[in-house]
Amino acid sequence: MYEGAVQDLIDELGRLPGVGPKSAQRIAFHLLQAEPADAQRLADAITRVKATVRFCARCFNVSEAEECRICRDPRRDGRVLCVVEEARDVVAIERTREYRGRYHVLGGAISPIDGIGPDDLHVRDLVRRLDDEPVDELIIATNPNVEGEATASYLSRLFAPLGVRITRLASGLPVGGDLDYADEVTLGRAFAGRRDVRG
Amino acid sequence: MYEGAVQDLIDELGRLPGVGPKSAQRIAFHLLQAEPADAQRLADAITRVKATVRFCARCFNVSEAEECRICRDPRRDGRVLCVVEEARDVVAIERTREYRGRYHVLGGAISPIDGIGPDDLHVRDLVRRLDDEPVDELIIATNPNVEGEATASYLSRLFAPLGVRITRLASGLPVGGDLDYADEVTLGRAFAGRRDVRG
Repeated sequence: MYEGAVQDLIDELGRLPGVGPKSAQRIAFHLLQAEPADAQRLADAITRVKATVRFCARCFNVSEAEECRICRDPRRDGRVLCVVEEARDVVAIERTREYRGRYHVLGGAISPIDGIGPDDLHVRDLVRRLDDEPVDELIIATNPNVEGEATASYLSRLFAPLGVRITRLASGLPVGGDLDYADEVTLGRAFAGRRDVRG
Repeated sequence: MYEGAVQDLIDELGRLPGVGPKSAQRIAFHLLQAEPADAQRLADAITRVKATVRFCARCFNVSEAEECRICRDPRRDGRVLCVVEEARDVVAIERTREYRGRYHVLGGAISPIDGIGPDDLHVRDLVRRLDDEPVDELIIATNPNVEGEATASYLSRLFAPLGVRITRLASGLPVGGDLDYADEVTLGRAFAGRRDVRG
């Protein structure tokens, strides 16, 4: 429908997650009409991220150095490891400012339907870390969905013999949400995980 | 929150239309994990579109040459000009395969709130075209919203003295839609524009 270069750009944009054909077209026209320097900044940012960013050799978080900022930070508590699916989960947890331990990024979750097993994730690297590092607690912070739960129960079975404390993030009502909007599984978990209130 | 290059990419992606902070982050991580060649293809498509695509000197549609494919096509009827807001509207109309005339892309719509007046659009170029080209009919196909209607009435007043036929696309019920889902303005227009049915 469009001339060569425009259609190529629409096609490439349409391959990005969450970008449908209409948005791809809208973004392409935005770039067409943008200042050349602004469009080039985006192109350069893509090139530069691929050239400079790699994955931390220890925890597989994104990093511009051999090891990421968190692994290099001596103030972080190396006795607690938080296991997450993706590097963006690290950022979500860091934003809470509640956690001072270190991370291990699996690179996904176990999903037999998608053919993803433990060997496709950084599970073996985690086994090695638990051998090498003085870890007391493993917080399994995989997503509260089918794949995340399957991964969590696989990991807790795998590491049970090590004697390390294994925990899972609490499930319950989201803060600021309405009780009658919660789905029944979340509400059930919130009941099961109820805590005593000290008056 | 992220290290330099990743944050830069998230910032640049977040400037695109319809891409919020969450999607920018999701797209950035997708690109981080993509094959380098795939990410580079997107970067190159952006660079190439800025290098090769310009706007048609006659109708301001996107074009890789001095004049766009439609203006260069001798089979298109130069006596009918369809005036649209954006180049993507040309593609939408071309997709109908109903229209065999030529186009004029305004580059937007009149919007006093956004400080956009006729001089910010390709209106003067349209005046010149109506002087130079043997146009019989001007189809004003601006969007059926406040700005588009304002632009349409401005243009129809401007060109009324020329004696050229000026038309506007029909408003009415979208084909395939449900009558009771139509808003009252659309339904009102559908009544006002009702046509005789020949049995």
